Amino acid sequence: MTEPVVVIGGDAAGMSAASKVKREAPDTEVIVFEQGEWVSYAACGMPYYIKGDIEHLDDLVQVTPEEFRAERGVDLRTGHEVVGIDPDSETVTVRTDNETFEQSYGTLLIATGASAVEPPFAGMDLDGVFTLHDMDEAGEIDRYIDEHEPESAAIVGGGYVGIEMAEALDERGLDVALYEMLPQVLAPFGEAVGERVGDHLSEQGVDLHLETAVDGFSGERAVDAVETEDGRRPAELVVVGVGVEPNTSLAAEAGIELGETGAIAVDEYGRTNDENIYAAGDCAESTNVVTGEPDHVPLALTANRAGRAIGQTITGTPQPVGEIAGTAIVKAFDLGAARTGVLDEERARDAGFEPVSVTIDTASRAHYYPGASELTVTLVADEPSGRVLGASLVGREGAKRIDTVATALTAALTVEELQGADLAYAPPYSPVWDPILTAAKVLGSKLAD
Amino acid sequence: MTEPVVVIGGDAAGMSAASKVKREAPDTEVIVFEQGEWVSYAACGMPYYIKGDIEHLDDLVQVTPEEFRAERGVDLRTGHEVVGIDPDSETVTVRTDNETFEQSYGTLLIATGASAVEPPFAGMDLDGVFTLHDMDEAGEIDRYIDEHEPESAAIVGGGYVGIEMAEALDERGLDVALYEMLPQVLAPFGEAVGERVGDHLSEQGVDLHLETAVDGFSGERAVDAVETEDGRRPAELVVVGVGVEPNTSLAAEAGIELGETGAIAVDEYGRTNDENIYAAGDCAESTNVVTGEPDHVPLALTANRAGRAIGQTITGTPQPVGEIAGTAIVKAFDLGAARTGVLDEERARDAGFEPVSVTIDTASRAHYYPGASELTVTLVADEPSGRVLGASLVGREGAKRIDTVATALTAALTVEELQGADLAYAPPYSPVWDPILTAAKVLGSKLAD
Repeated sequence: MTEPVVVIGGDAAGMSAASKVKREAPDTEVIVFEQGEWVSYAACGMPYYIKGDIEHLDDLVQVTPEEFRAERGVDLRTGHEVVGIDPDSETVTVRTDNETFEQSYGTLLIATGASAVEPPFAGMDLDGVFTLHDMDEAGEIDRYIDEHEPESAAIVGGGYVGIEMAEALDERGLDVALYEMLPQVLAPFGEAVGERVGDHLSEQGVDLHLETAVDGFSGERAVDAVETEDGRRPAELVVVGVGVEPNTSLAAEAGIELGETGAIAVDEYGRTNDENIYAAGDCAESTNVVTGEPDHVPLALTANRAGRAIGQTITGTPQPVGEIAGTAIVKAFDLGAARTGVLDEERARDAGFEPVSVTIDTASRAHYYPGASELTVTLVADEPSGRVLGASLVGREGAKRIDTVATALTAALTVEELQGADLAYAPPYSPVWDPILTAAKVLGSKLAD
Repeated sequence: MTEPVVVIGGDAAGMSAASKVKREAPDTEVIVFEQGEWVSYAACGMPYYIKGDIEHLDDLVQVTPEEFRAERGVDLRTGHEVVGIDPDSETVTVRTDNETFEQSYGTLLIATGASAVEPPFAGMDLDGVFTLHDMDEAGEIDRYIDEHEPESAAIVGGGYVGIEMAEALDERGLDVALYEMLPQVLAPFGEAVGERVGDHLSEQGVDLHLETAVDGFSGERAVDAVETEDGRRPAELVVVGVGVEPNTSLAAEAGIELGETGAIAVDEYGRTNDENIYAAGDCAESTNVVTGEPDHVPLALTANRAGRAIGQTITGTPQPVGEIAGTAIVKAFDLGAARTGVLDEERARDAGFEPVSVTIDTASRAHYYPGASELTVTLVADEPSGRVLGASLVGREGAKRIDTVATALTAALTVEELQGADLAYAPPYSPVWDPILTAAKVLGSKLAD
């Protein structure tokens, strides 16, 4: 009898792989060990649950455990923590509330995800201080607001979680202060986005503190203040969102190699240095489509896609996990901000490029059409080759246009080629020259100089 | 002394070219002859003027005649009709209200645009029967509604103009009937779009008559009814929008070659068979990026882009006019519909492809996020090569996503490559798998079978 396919972790990557294996090879035994109770959930939706846009936490679950078991034939075991991998004997050690046992595998997929970074701030363990990386935390924050009715909130970190939580907590009626160590919010989106989103947060009443280090939190049992280099401010609720780190200890202890980014190193098929062990999702590296180098961008699409590809590879039809451009989009109150590719000039130079960029302000629709608003586009290219390296967008509408540039990155288009794309125009949707085309036109002129 | 650059026609292509020549080579004399009084206007905005979304017709003018003259140094002459071209003597014959004269040229650009097709219906000359292809007509329709307060309107043709005018006239309080000879509206957008837009028009109260030929219009001096094969219905206002035809007679009489599409044949630089004569905009052919064949898609971006490229070529830096994908987007009440590339299977086969397609219904946002609506995507590819040939989209939001496929066409991506694009995801903007990616995934599976 063949040994089963074993998956560690029941979220996007793990469940995509498990489902794909069962679809392609229904007779294969697939066991998924998930340490928690939630599987296959949309973590990105959690801030909107807290905000009140989504009624039940359950609504964020894409496929229920029962569906995985009954309809897809996956042997899904929640409440099962894998505590060890032995690549020599090809077994994993699994712990539940009641027992510890070994499970042998033919193929193993590590899809252990990432965890919210917990900085060593004083008072991290006070009541009312949260990170936001899993469904239980989302539920806890929601309940904490209902039960304790905090009036003020401090958010630490101006990334996705920080920005989305600022909107959510503002909607819940809290006075929100946001602390960011860097000179801008959304640093990976570049300066132009950081500036507009920062201004907009302030306009919306968020008390924004840039270049401000947080020392810790104070209070008796529950948090009542945040301490920063600038002093002490009331905060009856704190959300710390300073990034995530891949969950790699299980892999590392088993001798699985990690890459330079700190996540698990994999080849183009998602395979680790052990030929029977794959890794995918937030715990694993990807290849950046622009630099060709390993990268760690823990996002949902990457996890889903890699899981699905690995599921297919396992069943005998090798399928590369694909490359990533680091494309991301985030809502910040009434603004949308998006990015793709390599925006950071230093990073571009490290990858051997000579970056040149432009930032332009254009209109989201024909200038005379009602509802037109300003869209700010940054486009970056490599000077010698003209190749497009990355872009960012920010405005009240139209941020999803980043997909045009993301597609251009997949195709390694030059600025001139992108400029020639026949993009859609009608007054309610775009100026004649789509903002991406205008940016390409301006950058093209700069490259020609 | 060098002879001037002469441009016939003062709209998108002509004025883009004129402006570009003056910017690149300020000392070059550039004369533009425009027979009417309007130049450089957004014809696509006219239905929204009639609807009432845009206050002044002037708001549709991008650059005024005064700006072209004073700021850009273009010798723009409105009210000047070119009635003849003599390629041998390199002169054009120009007529104004007062005189007829000859103007010699060094380089000539024919940018005579297109005209609304006027079918030989009985009663076309009745008051209240309009086409909509220039600013004067837009003004006339608006005034006619104000002055005569018609209660019923018949629109002939279910293309862009027909659909947009249905919305505009409905907003103005008229009972609107729309007559289309084909079994669907928006035929170039394919069946899936036609069906949803047709249903939506009916929901909005438009009396939709498909597969219905119009015989003509009746009335004393002013129209009061439309006559169709199904009988007679009241219509106190009629808009005929059954397509446009390129204005080529001037060119043809001068021996300039027309292409198979009926528009002026040009090379990749927009040059006609006479090396000193270029043609651009709605009167000229373009090269289709998918088929590599000449095509005639009279749209604003194509005209602007070709004009600008020709302006640059004229000043000594040859710049191809670029290829087109036939990308288009149109608002139909609360729906947006878009298309790009080759959707028609017969046309794909004529171009040597073996088309295979899928149509899927997906969500515009994460399924649990407020405001998510159904987005219908059709994706077409060539079976042997897997190359993407075209796509259409229709839904309450998200139609501008067509740009992702338009960019893929520019890059000649395969379905598999498109499927690998790292498109942006966040719950307010998209499901994890963007609708385009889902369509590519489904089509990819079909190709793999």
